[in-house]
Amino acid sequence: MSKIDVEIVEVGPRDGLQNLDVVMPTADKCRWIAAEHAAGVREIEVGSFVPPKLLPQMADTGEVVAFARTLPNLRIATLAPNLRGALDAIKGGTHKIGVPISVSPEHSLSNVRKTPMQMVEELAKICKARDESGAAVEIEGALSTAFGCTMAGAVPEDDVLRIAEACLRAGIDSLALADTVGYANPAQVRSLFERVRGIAGDKLTSGHFHDTRGLGLANVMAALETGIRSFDATLGGLGGCPFAPGATGNVSTEDLVFMLESMGLRTGIDLAKLIETRKILEQALPGRPLYGSIARAGLPKGFRQAA
Amino acid sequence: MSKIDVEIVEVGPRDGLQNLDVVMPTADKCRWIAAEHAAGVREIEVGSFVPPKLLPQMADTGEVVAFARTLPNLRIATLAPNLRGALDAIKGGTHKIGVPISVSPEHSLSNVRKTPMQMVEELAKICKARDESGAAVEIEGALSTAFGCTMAGAVPEDDVLRIAEACLRAGIDSLALADTVGYANPAQVRSLFERVRGIAGDKLTSGHFHDTRGLGLANVMAALETGIRSFDATLGGLGGCPFAPGATGNVSTEDLVFMLESMGLRTGIDLAKLIETRKILEQALPGRPLYGSIARAGLPKGFRQAA
Repeated sequence: MSKIDVEIVEVGPRDGLQNLDVVMPTADKCRWIAAEHAAGVREIEVGSFVPPKLLPQMADTGEVVAFARTLPNLRIATLAPNLRGALDAIKGGTHKIGVPISVSPEHSLSNVRKTPMQMVEELAKICKARDESGAAVEIEGALSTAFGCTMAGAVPEDDVLRIAEACLRAGIDSLALADTVGYANPAQVRSLFERVRGIAGDKLTSGHFHDTRGLGLANVMAALETGIRSFDATLGGLGGCPFAPGATGNVSTEDLVFMLESMGLRTGIDLAKLIETRKILEQALPGRPLYGSIARAGLPKGFRQAA
Repeated sequence: MSKIDVEIVEVGPRDGLQNLDVVMPTADKCRWIAAEHAAGVREIEVGSFVPPKLLPQMADTGEVVAFARTLPNLRIATLAPNLRGALDAIKGGTHKIGVPISVSPEHSLSNVRKTPMQMVEELAKICKARDESGAAVEIEGALSTAFGCTMAGAVPEDDVLRIAEACLRAGIDSLALADTVGYANPAQVRSLFERVRGIAGDKLTSGHFHDTRGLGLANVMAALETGIRSFDATLGGLGGCPFAPGATGNVSTEDLVFMLESMGLRTGIDLAKLIETRKILEQALPGRPLYGSIARAGLPKGFRQAA
């Protein structure tokens, strides 16, 4: 297997679908996941363990995890906002559980009816349950609204640092900073990643950027320059946060792979195959907009992926 | 007048319109230019002096320059691909003349029926004519297809350096590197700007990026980090090159201003007023697509421009 410089985590089956007004059939989700796996994607967030009443789009996450486990060398991530979901995730055979902690109290209360520090307490319970289960499951603290919030506006860096520190004390294995609503700018990304690295060290592993205001890839560049080597993205730029209005559109996986491979950074992903995979979304989500530039414009003449 | 950290050059009336299948009436061009001036834009490329038969969209450039000269503190740029056009530009009262030199021989021959070195000879004549006229007009060598070409594919960095050197010998005042077709990536931008700076020093002043493949703002960031403080952009991301198929869409002015101001870099441009200016394009170009994210998504809650 060839070496990889930057890891791309496809989060479309979770972040891309949870905000849609339709439920993607399980078979389509599995087709999509299998196609991205065949294109070389090696980590996929396949769903979230939340009450089906709240997010019917995610009701089949257990089945999707079971399918994903049949694909070789695929790291399966799921999201769980509470202990109950995390236990389901562990039981189902997830390799990584992302626990979202919104730094903005307004967003957190509206999203999960808990304050950020109450979420950290839940996170501590999840880490403890994981330890007791003996399962080799990574617990990632995902700090959402870390760069701003549609309800609170600016989110102070010091608040992010305080929550990050609390998450580390709670026992997480890794930490991600997320621009849930597309408010971040490259200077802010650089500053915040550097400050959080100061307290989290190598446990700060990942960046999650939305392209809502067009700065997604510029923000990836800024985080990359601080040493981050793992980024979330969604095929066709699907995505958004159901509780943050206007926050549509993650960084598009294919544009991100194009940028990194153009720069000579290996992702392990076959870009032509990845772009083909959009057809599955076009069929499964008729009439829903897909974003991203490279699929529309085509690869540059003579383009070659990183060797 | 407040200090400015990064200069934005609106090139929409030239690069944004030249590729359209309609001719924007002179009155609309003037309205657009006046509105951007009122929003704080202080350099606008208002047209190009080319044969009207080739580019009817630019036939009124003389009139547009005359109007623009009535706006206080506005630096008026025009494009001229040959001596005849440059003489018209000088006579009309242009403050800056951009002379496009395509580094790719294929693109150059198809675009102006001259090789790159023949274009440099024309550039030398233009510089000489400017000197003899005694006019204080800046001559900028704009190296197009510097990052790749839809016809030739990759464009070697050494070719760019060779042409840059020849342009400097020809007597230019300033040099711009242009990603005419949206092929550039941030690593390439950094490398090429640094190498060209090595021979051009402070005469390398400007970056011109198309967003065809979504990397426009990431490329701006890379050039900014090498010390570039002037960028071309078009309102609503209008644009393209008539001889480079699929090369639609400059970096959108409003997204660029949003990124820079978010980072605390002053552009001198009132972003809300600038976004309002899109309405003029919507009225004047019905049915033609406008691009850009910030106008669609809206400014972040509590957003303030750089102080």
